[in-house]
Amino acid sequence: MNYMRNAWYVAGWSKDLAQGAPQGVVILDEPIVIWRSGGCVTALEDRCVHRLAPLSLGRCEGEHLRCQYHGFKYNRDGRVVEIPGQSSVPPQARVRAYPIAERHSWLWVWMGEPSLADESLIPPAVGLDDADWILGCGQLDYAAEAQLINDNLLDFSHLPYVHANSFGTPSTFAETLPKLTALPRGVRYERWNESARSRARDGATGGMVDIYMTYDFLVPGILLMWSGSFAPGTAKGCSYGRPEFAQAVSGVTFTSQAVTPTAPRQARYFFSWGPHREHGDESVRDALMQLAGKAFGEDKDIIEAQQRIIDRTAAPKVMPSAHDRSVTMFTQLVARMIREESPVGRASTATGASRSAAT
Amino acid sequence: MNYMRNAWYVAGWSKDLAQGAPQGVVILDEPIVIWRSGGCVTALEDRCVHRLAPLSLGRCEGEHLRCQYHGFKYNRDGRVVEIPGQSSVPPQARVRAYPIAERHSWLWVWMGEPSLADESLIPPAVGLDDADWILGCGQLDYAAEAQLINDNLLDFSHLPYVHANSFGTPSTFAETLPKLTALPRGVRYERWNESARSRARDGATGGMVDIYMTYDFLVPGILLMWSGSFAPGTAKGCSYGRPEFAQAVSGVTFTSQAVTPTAPRQARYFFSWGPHREHGDESVRDALMQLAGKAFGEDKDIIEAQQRIIDRTAAPKVMPSAHDRSVTMFTQLVARMIREESPVGRASTATGASRSAAT
Amino acid sequence: MNYMRNAWYVAGWSKDLAQGAPQGVVILDEPIVIWRSGGCVTALEDRCVHRLAPLSLGRCEGEHLRCQYHGFKYNRDGRVVEIPGQSSVPPQARVRAYPIAERHSWLWVWMGEPSLADESLIPPAVGLDDADWILGCGQLDYAAEAQLINDNLLDFSHLPYVHANSFGTPSTFAETLPKLTALPRGVRYERWNESARSRARDGATGGMVDIYMTYDFLVPGILLMWSGSFAPGTAKGCSYGRPEFAQAVSGVTFTSQAVTPTAPRQARYFFSWGPHREHGDESVRDALMQLAGKAFGEDKDIIEAQQRIIDRTAAPKVMPSAHDRSVTMFTQLVARMIREESPVGRASTATGASRSAAT
Repeated sequence: MNYMRNAWYVAGWSKDLAQGAPQGVVILDEPIVIWRSGGCVTALEDRCVHRLAPLSLGRCEGEHLRCQYHGFKYNRDGRVVEIPGQSSVPPQARVRAYPIAERHSWLWVWMGEPSLADESLIPPAVGLDDADWILGCGQLDYAAEAQLINDNLLDFSHLPYVHANSFGTPSTFAETLPKLTALPRGVRYERWNESARSRARDGATGGMVDIYMTYDFLVPGILLMWSGSFAPGTAKGCSYGRPEFAQAVSGVTFTSQAVTPTAPRQARYFFSWGPHREHGDESVRDALMQLAGKAFGEDKDIIEAQQRIIDRTAAPKVMPSAHDRSVTMFTQLVARMIREESPVGRASTATGASRSAAT
Repeated sequence: MNYMRNAWYVAGWSKDLAQGAPQGVVILDEPIVIWRSGGCVTALEDRCVHRLAPLSLGRCEGEHLRCQYHGFKYNRDGRVVEIPGQSSVPPQARVRAYPIAERHSWLWVWMGEPSLADESLIPPAVGLDDADWILGCGQLDYAAEAQLINDNLLDFSHLPYVHANSFGTPSTFAETLPKLTALPRGVRYERWNESARSRARDGATGGMVDIYMTYDFLVPGILLMWSGSFAPGTAKGCSYGRPEFAQAVSGVTFTSQAVTPTAPRQARYFFSWGPHREHGDESVRDALMQLAGKAFGEDKDIIEAQQRIIDRTAAPKVMPSAHDRSVTMFTQLVARMIREESPVGRASTATGASRSAAT
Repeated sequence: MNYMRNAWYVAGWSKDLAQGAPQGVVILDEPIVIWRSGGCVTALEDRCVHRLAPLSLGRCEGEHLRCQYHGFKYNRDGRVVEIPGQSSVPPQARVRAYPIAERHSWLWVWMGEPSLADESLIPPAVGLDDADWILGCGQLDYAAEAQLINDNLLDFSHLPYVHANSFGTPSTFAETLPKLTALPRGVRYERWNESARSRARDGATGGMVDIYMTYDFLVPGILLMWSGSFAPGTAKGCSYGRPEFAQAVSGVTFTSQAVTPTAPRQARYFFSWGPHREHGDESVRDALMQLAGKAFGEDKDIIEAQQRIIDRTAAPKVMPSAHDRSVTMFTQLVARMIREESPVGRASTATGASRSAAT
C-alpha cells in the first residue's frame, strides 16, 4: 500500500499512556516507541541503533529512554547520549524522531517530513473530556487494510445490509444518495431523513422528526460525525442545507473515529460516541456503546472477509456504484496529496538503522 | 499445483446445505458460494463485483442472493439484477456461475468449461439414502495437497504400516501386487486374499474365506470401493477375476470417498462407509465409523507430516516402487486430461471480478 | 543465513532418546531422524526416498528403521535394504547419513563432510553425570535466528539491563570491558570483579571476595563457563590472569550451553548449570535453575522482540559498541571457517531425495 506520510495518524489514547511506561506501536509498518515523561510525550523509531532491539522494552530515566538490551541511552531527539563501556558516542548514533501531539484525547504522530508537522492540521475530534458531550470509547484491531475500513466509513449505504441486526436501518436508506462536498483535506457527507419516526432514547420527544446526519471524513482516515433530530419541516425550511445545531430537539450525538494503518493488511480502529449533554446521559452513552460494540463487530466481520477474498484474487478490481462517489472523491484526494508530497516529505530523516520495507 | 478443471468436484454434503442459508466453499483456490432455494442449488463465484466481499455472507431472497455489504442482488446466473441507489445495472456486473449437481448425497461442482458439464460424468458413489446400504459419513480437513491424499488412496500397500494399530493389516498384504485396470476416467484396483480368517463382525460365518476387495479411483479424486468375503475356493474358481457380488457370504461393505483440493496445500476429504443391508446393521456401521475415525486420522498424520517434509525440500523428487503403478497410472491420466482440456475449457467464463491466482 | 557445516551441533539430550524410539529433529533447516538401537545412535536424513514421508514416524526393527508409510526399511548407513512388493532395491535408494556422537550428555550431529567429522572437535562440555558437578538442565525453543542468541551470549554487557530483575547485576558491570582471547575455534572471555560482596549461597563465606568468571564460546555456538569466588587479593596476585581453579573459596559453578539453528528464524537452546560438589548441593542447583528459568526467559523475550524488529527492517544494519569485540571476533571466525570449508565440505553427500533449500 501507498500511504500518505504528511498527515497526523492516531497512535493511541492519551489515557492509555502512563507516565514513564514506554509503549510500542506500529504505524505504516514502522515500529515506534512513545512515552510520557513529565509534561512531554515523545515518539522515536522503536529500534535501537546498536542491535535493533525495540526501545519500547526499555526504561524511562527522567526524560531519557534507555534500551534494556545493552543500555544505550536516548534523548527525546532520538540521539544516543550514553553507551555503557564507551567514553564517546558516535554522532550517527541516532534514531528517527517523530513529531507527536496530544489532542482531543488522542496521541497523534506525524509520519512525514517533520518540518511540515503543523498541529493546526490535526482534525477537530471531540475529546473524552469535552464538557458538552458524554462519550464512551473503544478500539478494534483489524486484519485488513486500513483503506477497506475507510471505504466502509465513506459509504453509508452499507447500513441497511451490514447493520440490519444492529442499527436496523431500513433499505430505503440506500435508495437515495447523500449530499457530498469536497473539503480541503476530506469529504463532507450530509443527509436529511424527513418525517422519520423519532428514535430519541430519552423518551422526551415522540412522533415524527426530520433527522439530519453529517460527517467529515478527513485524511488520513478520521471520521467526525454528528446527527440529531429536528422539528418536522426543518429540512425543507433550510432547503435541505446544514441546520443550526442548536435547533435540534433531541438525539444529538457525536462520534469521532480514526483508522490507523499498522502493518500490511492490519489496522487499528479507534472510536468514541455519545450524546450531547442536553440530549442524553450516561445511560444513553452506555446504550450507544453497546450498540457500537455490536455494529462495529459486524463491520469487522465483513471487512476481514472481504480482505480474505481480495487476498485470494490475482488482480483485484472493483466496480464502483453510485454510492461510491464519496469513496472515489476521498481516494483521489489521497492519491493527489501523496503525489504532492515533496521528495523531502517522502524521505525519512536520517536514522542510525535502516528503514522499514513499507516506507 | 495444476488441477483438472473439466471434472466434478465434491463441494459438500447435501444434508449440510439448508434452505436459504448460503455457504462459502473453496475449490481449486476459488471461493464459491452455494445455496439452496426452492428445489434448486446454485453455485456462484463468492466475490461481489462491487468491492469483492464474499456473497456467502449474503442473504437469500427467493431465488436471488443479496450481498450483505452494500446490497447488490444476484440472480442464479451470476448477474447483478439490482444495485441500491442506481436505476440501472451495467451488463458487465456479473460473477461466474458454476454448474452444480446434487447426486448421491453430495453437491458436485464443475470447475471447467460450463458447456462441457455432463452430469453423466458424475462418479456413481453410493448415497446415504441408498436402500441397500447402511452408511455413516464424515469429513476431514487436510493441511496437505489433495494429490498426496490421492496417492495414499491409490496405493494400499500403506495399510500394514500406517494402519498397523487400526486395520491391523498384516505385512504380507504389501508383499503382493494388486490387479490394476485402466478405466476411461480412472483406475480399477482388485485383489483377492485367499483362505483368510473371516473378519465378519456379525459372527454368522467363522473359519476361512476368500476376501475380495476392489475400488475404482476416478478423476478428480473419487474412491468407490466394496469388499466382501466369499466361500473358500471362489478366488480360484473365477480365476482371480471379478466375483459375482451376490455370491458374497459375509462382510460386504461399501465406501465412497472424495478428495477436493481447496487451497494450495489444503484439501477436504469426504467419506461414507457401511455394510450392505444383508451383511450388517447399524451397530456394524457404527463400528466401521469408529474404525474409520482412527484409521483416517492415521492417514492424515502421515500425509501432513509428508507435506511438511516436502515443504522443507528444495526440489522434491519421489522414487516410485512397484506398488506405485496405480499412482503413476492415475497421475498420467490426469496429466493427459489436463493437456486435452481445450483452451476454452481452461479459461474461466466472463466474470465481473478477477480470477484467483490458482486458476 | 549462512551456517558452518563442518561442526558438531547439539541435536538433543542423551537422556531424551529412548531405545527404539526414533526422534525427528531439524538442524540447519534439514530434517534429521535420530534413533538409539542397542549401543548405537544413528542420524539419517528424515525423508524417505520413496515419497518423502518422515522416517521419524517410522519403527525401529533391530538396528534398522522402517518407514511407516509404505514400509521401506533402512540400515544405519541410510541405505534402503527392503522395499515391500519388490525383490530388489535400486542402489540409489539411499538417504544421507550424518555422523553422530554421544558425549557430555548431548547428542552431537556433524552437518558437514562426513570424512572430516573428528570427534576430538566436540567441545568439552560438562555432562550431567560428571561426578564433580551437581547440574540441572533445560532447553528453550526460540523464534529467532541462532546468531542473535550467540550474539547475546558473547556480550555479557546485557546483564545489568536484560537481567536487572533476575541476576541483579549492577550497571557498573557494563562499564568495564572483559579480557578476550582468540581460541582456534572460539573466543575466551575473562573478567575479575574485585572486592565484591560474596554471593555464595551456602553461607559458608561472608564478606568480600574477588569473583572470577570465564567462558569459552566455541563454534558453532557452545558456551562453557565457570565462575567462582576467591580470597580478596587473588585478582591482583595473579595479575588479573587465570586463577588456579582449586583456589576458589566458594560459589564455583559451571554452565554448558548450546545454540542450534533449527529452521530460518528458529533455534533451540540447551543448557545445564550447577555448583561444584565442594561448593553447593542439590538445593543450590535448584536455586540456580530457578534463577536460570527466569533469566533465560528474559533473554528469550528481548531476542525474539529484536528478531521481530529486524524482520520489519528492509536492510538491517547494526552499530557495534566496544562490548561487541567478542561478537565481532566470533562472527569473523565463523565467516572465515565457512570460507575455508572446501566445496566438498559444503556439498552434502549423495542422497535419494533432494536437499533442503537452506543447504
